[in-house]
Amino acid sequence: MERIIVDMDEVIADPMGDMIDWYTREYKLPVNYEKMVGTSWIKGFPEQHQELCWQRLLAPGFFRHLPVIEDSQEVLKDINKRYELFIVSAAVEFPNSLKDKLDWLNEHFSFLTWKQFVFCGDKKLVYGDYIIDDHVRNLVNFPGKKYLFTSPHNLNETDYHRLNNWKEVSELFLK
Amino acid sequence: MERIIVDMDEVIADPMGDMIDWYTREYKLPVNYEKMVGTSWIKGFPEQHQELCWQRLLAPGFFRHLPVIEDSQEVLKDINKRYELFIVSAAVEFPNSLKDKLDWLNEHFSFLTWKQFVFCGDKKLVYGDYIIDDHVRNLVNFPGKKYLFTSPHNLNETDYHRLNNWKEVSELFLK
Repeated sequence: MERIIVDMDEVIADPMGDMIDWYTREYKLPVNYEKMVGTSWIKGFPEQHQELCWQRLLAPGFFRHLPVIEDSQEVLKDINKRYELFIVSAAVEFPNSLKDKLDWLNEHFSFLTWKQFVFCGDKKLVYGDYIIDDHVRNLVNFPGKKYLFTSPHNLNETDYHRLNNWKEVSELFLK
Repeated sequence: MERIIVDMDEVIADPMGDMIDWYTREYKLPVNYEKMVGTSWIKGFPEQHQELCWQRLLAPGFFRHLPVIEDSQEVLKDINKRYELFIVSAAVEFPNSLKDKLDWLNEHFSFLTWKQFVFCGDKKLVYGDYIIDDHVRNLVNFPGKKYLFTSPHNLNETDYHRLNNWKEVSELFLK
C-alpha cells in the first residue's frame, strides 16, 4: 500500500481563516493577501497587530476550534481506504497546540486513529510515497513525490506540482 | 552527517522507575520483573493494581517529572555534535503526555531544540541511519541499523544488537 503524508495547517485545518474571521470582526480592518506571498500568512495582518495574532496562535485552545478545509474530510476518508495515510504536523514549535491538534483530529477525522498522527519539529525524517504540504521547506527533503497545496503565502512558488483544493487531490489519487 | 533516532521512555526517561518508586512507597509491595518479559513493564505490578498504574500514567503531569536515564544527557550532548539527532517518542497514544514530554525535554536536554523532537503514533514512517529503542515493534520496519536498548520487558529478545546502557552507546558511536 502506498504511503501518503498529509500536512495539517492550511491543508486540512484553517488557522489563517480562523484568524482572519476573528481579526476582521474585532478590528474591522482588512488583511493584505499580497503581503503573505513568499513569507507567512501572519504578515498579511497590519503590522501593529501581528504580535497580537502571534499571541492568539500560541495560546491554549487556538488549534482546538479551527474550521476544516473544504472537502478534506470526504476525500481523506476515501484515501484512507486505498493508501497508508499519515497526518504530519510541524506542531512542536507550538507547545500548547499539541493536545488541541490531537483533540481536533479525533473530532473531525474520527475515521483515523492515533497511530496515523505525527507531531514533529522538522519533517525531514518522515518518508513515504507522496506528501501534500503548503510549505516548500517541508517538501524539499522528501524522498517521494511532492505536492504543494495552494495557500496565499505560496502563490509565487513554481517548482512544485500544485494542488489547489481537495477536489484536485481526489482527481489525482482516487480516479 | 549521519542521523540517529533515539527513543524516549526507558531509553532517556524512566517512567518504569518512577512508577516502581511510587508503588513500593504507597503499597509496600514488590514488583515482579519476570512478568514484564516479552510484554509491558506494567505487567510486573500486582494484577489488582495495574489499572491504577495505567490511570497514573495517563494523567497530566506523569511524564513531566520522570527521572533521566543514567548518562544519557552527557552522551547525547556529544552525539548531538557529531550526528544529526532526533528524539522520537510514540507519545500520541497518551494525549496528556505530549506537552509534559516537550517540557521535560526542554528541561533535561536543553542543548537540543524543538526541531529535533517527534511525537508520533507509529514509528514506521521515520528514517535515518541508526535507531536506539527498547521496543522491537519500533525497530522492525526501520530502514537503518537497529539497536535494542535493554529494559526488563525485552530481556528475551535475541534478534537485535543490544545496548545495555549509555556507556555502551558512547563506546559504539563516539569512539
